[in-house]
This record gives sequence, C-alpha cells and structure tokens, in this order.
Amino acid sequence: MLDDLKLHYEIERFNTRYAAALDAQRLTEWADMFTDDAFYLVTSRENADRGLPVGLIYCEGRAMIRDRAFALHNTAMFAPRYLRHIIGNLSVERGQEIRATANYAVFQVLFDRPDATVHQLGVYRDVFLRTDQGLKLRERRCVYDNLLVPNALCLPV
Amino acid sequence: MLDDLKLHYEIERFNTRYAAALDAQRLTEWADMFTDDAFYLVTSRENADRGLPVGLIYCEGRAMIRDRAFALHNTAMFAPRYLRHIIGNLSVERGQEIRATANYAVFQVLFDRPDATVHQLGVYRDVFLRTDQGLKLRERRCVYDNLLVPNALCLPV
Amino acid sequence: MLDDLKLHYEIERFNTRYAAALDAQRLTEWADMFTDDAFYLVTSRENADRGLPVGLIYCEGRAMIRDRAFALHNTAMFAPRYLRHIIGNLSVERGQEIRATANYAVFQVLFDRPDATVHQLGVYRDVFLRTDQGLKLRERRCVYDNLLVPNALCLPV
Repeated sequence: MLDDLKLHYEIERFNTRYAAALDAQRLTEWADMFTDDAFYLVTSRENADRGLPVGLIYCEGRAMIRDRAFALHNTAMFAPRYLRHIIGNLSVERGQEIRATANYAVFQVLFDRPDATVHQLGVYRDVFLRTDQGLKLRERRCVYDNLLVPNALCLPV
Repeated sequence: MLDDLKLHYEIERFNTRYAAALDAQRLTEWADMFTDDAFYLVTSRENADRGLPVGLIYCEGRAMIRDRAFALHNTAMFAPRYLRHIIGNLSVERGQEIRATANYAVFQVLFDRPDATVHQLGVYRDVFLRTDQGLKLRERRCVYDNLLVPNALCLPV
Repeated sequence: MLDDLKLHYEIERFNTRYAAALDAQRLTEWADMFTDDAFYLVTSRENADRGLPVGLIYCEGRAMIRDRAFALHNTAMFAPRYLRHIIGNLSVERGQEIRATANYAVFQVLFDRPDATVHQLGVYRDVFLRTDQGLKLRERRCVYDNLLVPNALCLPV
C-alpha cells in the first residue's frame, strides 16, 4: 500500500506542476511534460461516451502539441484572461502501465468582466510513463462536460 | 503518523470512487458503498446548524438508499444533465469510530444550456466502518450551503 | 521521499483546518494559525505580477491580523453569507524554510440569492514555521485572479 501511496503522491505533484505551467502560460514547460510520441486530446463527454475519436484539440506527438500550444497562445492574446486549475479526485492504477484519472475544474477571469466563471470542467484520462527525466504523459485525454466551451477558444487544459 | 496518512489516503480513494459512481450514474455501485444500516442525509446548512433532523433526502438503511437513488434516476431522465464532483479538504479522525469530513462542489451541465454551473456546495460529515468488503459508510450527512438547490431536484451527492 | 510525503500531508491538514476555521467564522482560531510576526496579504494577480506591495488586506503581525478579522466580521454581519473553501494543487518545497503554494476557490452563498457563486479564486504563497505549537504561517500571500472581488468586501481567505 505504501508504494501505491507514493505513486499517488508523485502523480498528484505532476498534475500540480502541469496546472501551474498552463495557468502561468509556460507552454514550453507544459509541452515537455509529454513523451515524444504522446497523444493529447481534448474532447466532449458526449463524443467520448460514443467512442468518437474527434476533438477540439487532437495532437499526435510532442512536436504537434508544442505547435498547437503556441498557435493558441498567439490567438489567446486577443482575448487575454487568467486561468486557474483545481484538480481533484485523483485515482491511480498500476498495471503494465500507470493509468490515472483526475477531475479538473478550470476557472477563468476574462479581462472585460470582473468575476470568475467556470471555463471548463471534466476528467483527465491518462497513461504515464516513467522516463530518465521522471514521469511523463504518454496519453492525456481531457474529456469535458460543457456542451460548449465559452468563447469557442480551444486552450489546452 | 504513517498510519494516519494511510487512512487518509484510503478515505480519499473511497471518496473518489464514490464521486465517480455518482457522476457516471452507477447507482447500484453507489448504494453498495453504504453499510446495511447506514444513515444518509442531504440537508441544508441552516437546518444542520439548528440541529434539525429534516432533509431533502433522508434515508435509513441501504435498501432505502437504493430505492431513493433509482426513483430519482427515473425522474432525472426528464432533465438530463452531466454532474461532476470535486472533493477536497479531507479531514480524518481516528477514535472508536473513523470520522471524516470533506468539502464537495458538484458542478452540473444541463442539456439545454451550454455552460457549467455550481449545482451544490457543501460538506460531508461521515462515519466509516471497516468491513470484510473494505471501508463502507455507516453515516454520511451532506450539508449544503445553497439556499435552494437548482431545479429543485434532489439528486444524491 | 517519505519525509516529503509526510510534510505534504501535514500542510494539507493545516490548510484544511485553516479553511474550516474561516468557513465557520472561528476567527480567533484562524488568527492563531499565524506566528506573532506573520505577514498576511490579500492582493490581485496583477499587482503581484508587477511586484507591487499593495493589497486589499495588508497585515504585519498577528495582532493586526486578529484586529482586521474582527473588524471585517462586524462589517460582514450586514451582508451575511456562507463561505466554502476548496483548496487543491498543493506544492511544498523544503529548503531552509518550508515554502508552499496551493490553489484556492472560495465559493459563497449570499442570503438574498439562492445559488452559489465563486467569491474568490487564487493561489496561496506561503512560508511555514515549525513551532512548539505545531506548524504556523509566517507568511501567507493570497493572490486572487478576480479583477473585482464581489461586493467589494475584503474578507480574509
């Protein structure tokens, strides 16, 4: 059980670093948390439930992940905002692979309205790989509950 | 301290499974997380502060909990929605009984409006029992802050 | 790693007690979680990013923290509300000092509207000290994302 606890703690710390990188728009640091051949998907709960492989964001490989992040970053400049992740309900399974899920709430403050609202709500479905540089994401599927994501802007989450 | 930490971790995992069962509407799995003689209450902070034993949901025994869940499930079909729990601020006390509290935020996405909102916000006040099938809830009092729960629909939380 | 995990757990419990004290308006208990010479600041992300030392709340020393809490408590009576913290994404660093950060969402229910909304969203930037009475805050900077805090009421968070 202690080994499970330690792994749980490691992944919790990973998710905290991941969220901090995105919230501070440190996008290179964010992209480096994926393996070279990583799969990154942001898709709706409806599509995920039906097994549809489409998504708001669909990236195969870290190069594509990095490109996407910076393309969005440049776009996002036109509607600047603060983002803040709260990640909870972490669950980790150790088998041949390290699989994990966690619920996330991303709140946003747009610069033209004073209050904070829910930007996106969902679950991470992950596969982690232990590498020479520590844990990396080989797969992260972000499945969101919102029917429409506010502002139709597909920021990484 | 390590024993406290392990128990904390066990109950955190329990709450994560509990939330996942409700969010995916796996209501049989949810009801099986209670003991046969469990007490389950959903009540307002105002009533709880005054020591009033009334509630939106009041169940004595797992049979009643299961019945209530499925009755609500059928009703809920008329206003389908996605739910998502974020559980945090867990506190565990070991005495003769295992007592715990945790804050919860339940977000919802209704199918006729695109954004996510806070469905219910509150605190779990729990008594856990260690059984042959692992930890079970002997008592869960869900004390919510909202003055009215949106849509007047008393879903289990 | 086990020592890191234990310290992480200790600070998580500290933050849970801290939030519970504020949510229940136990302000003396709250103030006692700071050292005598503690620094407590509530400031906007914009000011923090620019290194400006101003804030909605600015307290040097526990006496000032306690005074401020009760002054606000009396004011708050005119607009009663329920508050509920969800604290997540804890990160702890052990060096010469114990430094930590954690994201917080404070939800509120005002007594003249039924639903729960986000009161304040931000990050705690902390320095902890181990004393004879356990861990205490020597410094807590609450950096909030909201551009305006609803109701312009500067409650401690």
